[in-house]
Amino acid sequence: MAPGGARAVARCDALGVAPYSDMPGGLYRGYLTPAHRAAVDRVSVWMVRAGMQVAVDPAGNLVGRYAGVAPDAPVLIIGSHIDSVRDGGRYDGPLGIMLGIECVAALQGRRMPFAIEVYAFGDEEGSRFPAAMLTSRAVAGTLDTDLALIADPQGVDLAEALRRFHGGDIADYATARHASGTPLAYLEAHIEQGPVLEAEGLAVGTVTGIAAQLRYGAQVTGMAGHAGTCSMPLRRDALAGAAEMMLAIEGIARGAASDLVATVGRIEALPGAANVIPGEVRFTIDVRAGDAARRDLGAEAILDAIHMIAKARGLGIAVEQVHDLPASPCDPALMAMLDAASVAAGQKVRRLVSGAGHDAMIMAALCSTAMVFIRCRGGISHHPAEHVDPADVEAALAVMLGFIERLGASLA
Amino acid sequence: MAPGGARAVARCDALGVAPYSDMPGGLYRGYLTPAHRAAVDRVSVWMVRAGMQVAVDPAGNLVGRYAGVAPDAPVLIIGSHIDSVRDGGRYDGPLGIMLGIECVAALQGRRMPFAIEVYAFGDEEGSRFPAAMLTSRAVAGTLDTDLALIADPQGVDLAEALRRFHGGDIADYATARHASGTPLAYLEAHIEQGPVLEAEGLAVGTVTGIAAQLRYGAQVTGMAGHAGTCSMPLRRDALAGAAEMMLAIEGIARGAASDLVATVGRIEALPGAANVIPGEVRFTIDVRAGDAARRDLGAEAILDAIHMIAKARGLGIAVEQVHDLPASPCDPALMAMLDAASVAAGQKVRRLVSGAGHDAMIMAALCSTAMVFIRCRGGISHHPAEHVDPADVEAALAVMLGFIERLGASLA
Repeated sequence: MAPGGARAVARCDALGVAPYSDMPGGLYRGYLTPAHRAAVDRVSVWMVRAGMQVAVDPAGNLVGRYAGVAPDAPVLIIGSHIDSVRDGGRYDGPLGIMLGIECVAALQGRRMPFAIEVYAFGDEEGSRFPAAMLTSRAVAGTLDTDLALIADPQGVDLAEALRRFHGGDIADYATARHASGTPLAYLEAHIEQGPVLEAEGLAVGTVTGIAAQLRYGAQVTGMAGHAGTCSMPLRRDALAGAAEMMLAIEGIARGAASDLVATVGRIEALPGAANVIPGEVRFTIDVRAGDAARRDLGAEAILDAIHMIAKARGLGIAVEQVHDLPASPCDPALMAMLDAASVAAGQKVRRLVSGAGHDAMIMAALCSTAMVFIRCRGGISHHPAEHVDPADVEAALAVMLGFIERLGASLA
Repeated sequence: MAPGGARAVARCDALGVAPYSDMPGGLYRGYLTPAHRAAVDRVSVWMVRAGMQVAVDPAGNLVGRYAGVAPDAPVLIIGSHIDSVRDGGRYDGPLGIMLGIECVAALQGRRMPFAIEVYAFGDEEGSRFPAAMLTSRAVAGTLDTDLALIADPQGVDLAEALRRFHGGDIADYATARHASGTPLAYLEAHIEQGPVLEAEGLAVGTVTGIAAQLRYGAQVTGMAGHAGTCSMPLRRDALAGAAEMMLAIEGIARGAASDLVATVGRIEALPGAANVIPGEVRFTIDVRAGDAARRDLGAEAILDAIHMIAKARGLGIAVEQVHDLPASPCDPALMAMLDAASVAAGQKVRRLVSGAGHDAMIMAALCSTAMVFIRCRGGISHHPAEHVDPADVEAALAVMLGFIERLGASLA
């Protein structure tokens, strides 16, 4: 038998083609699509082989259950998502599910003082319907969306999609809520989707939490003018002002020397002709940090700098807050268990924040959460070039198994 | 009778509506359009009233001739263009023609040692056909375009348009070349299209020349990445790099403390999502100065800075030169006459470069050129809000008349 880590990777690869993808020549597995259905059926087989009982819940999540020593034992949930973005990679999501299955397989029938439930969430990416993390929100009991209003771009609504998927009834959707009171913990393994572990030559990292995020839209107003006839001292160039602001934003995030990140991803200069001084510039600002306090401090410094620069240049400035997502910290005791398990597995302990969202941030409303990040090549995700080294996945599996042992010991 | 300056302004206003505009609610007078034809007919009347003989040349230019003391006297050409951009202003172009007519009118029949020919050029803006300054190029004898290939977006070619305009034959186009050997001088009055005169409280300025212009397209290549998962030290953010470059460009032009101007007018960041670090940025650079040496020194400093910044940030950089227009200096002796005429007219002498192109830069191939700039409100042009103060136009007329007297004296 192949080592568990290699098998987990091979299984992700097996799910990367038809019928597990609805996109010829690439991977697209949307929530409640035929590809999703086919993947659920295939993964069910692997769960059963590992010793689990399987079911599809009313939200379309595949759940494999491995009982604990006692019927009323608490539950450790290990989960991630089976859906993908369009033309995505093979590991973002499925790898965490496969590792959950490998954890159970590695126990070889040995019962723990807790049950293990492996969840293959159906909708994390939100790549089919205009909503994301619907299925983990159903499990966590935090659905606040009117499900009747959700339809895909082809006009198929969620109720119809659910009916086609497994004959489910939209009225039962919220009953996917986890039944066992408060689970003991939620554990998710996921590719890092960033370059930090690779840059430091590390296979795995302990996630400290999912970053708090602020998103702004900024509008700088100057005075458009002829690029040839308006002398430099008389200009009120909105783009030159925006350039100074962008540099300040970068400088503040760099200077924080923390997990603060700030990004200008979109910019538009108007009127947008080579021979006209821009009179108006719009750009986005995305600010994240592992906790809201650091994020807010960073955002405050950024807004102060932007306003000072606008004032000094005689430019108008309007900044509108578009998003405010709170941080979702991982549980300190669970993080300590992951760290200890990393050391035992011969890995250097590296704690890092997750800048991207994951089902774990939804599950945090239900129970304590922990996450393991796995190095991925070039930090690339959401792209066919997404790649993990099976040896790194092996390391992640060892850490997860060490975590399971330590969680068991903590209950003794 | 209204003073000449006020009448010149009033005549521009009269030409701002139908039938002299082909655009309802705004001004658009394209080359060889019905509006152009109507304007030529109206302006002809004004020329005749001022004492000129009028003709339309084979390129569609309206020419009013006021003979000198002798039939073989040399020629002073006073010109500007009668066409406009779409939804343009009333003074950019026509004002220079009306001032030429006022100069002749002010002579009240007195003959100078040179003839005066007032040209209403048909095509300076290039707003109808994909070519500009065709008609002054025909007069200067510098046409290097295959006229047969020129058609407007509706598919009407230049030959057909010329036929409809005045029954002209495209084969005769180049015979619009000025016949009298080398004219004595070319004089053009034009609104400044910039804010310099207004900022200094001056009505008029002596143009030193038309700026030399370089245009570049720059492409910065970094590494796209997730705005949440890529820590600051590991980023190769093409937009942050471009921001540093744009600030450097501005700084170099400001620091030159000369007539050097540099503008980034167009920018595009890819992939252009708020949560993705830009992996590629493209922007334009426009560099101008009154002479090619200052311009080239500025451009060299800018390119050096851009490459240094790219190198320091680990970014790729490619810069492509798109345009290289040489400078067109005005004649020093003619400038001195304009300065002296300004002083005599009670105006402070202010020399300034023209960052924009004008028919004068084409006519420079034929003879010595001189230009008078007239203050315009807010530096605005190519826009319905374009505005001149009749008092400033009066001042310009006085300067032009003083120039004519001095030019006459120089021939004595």
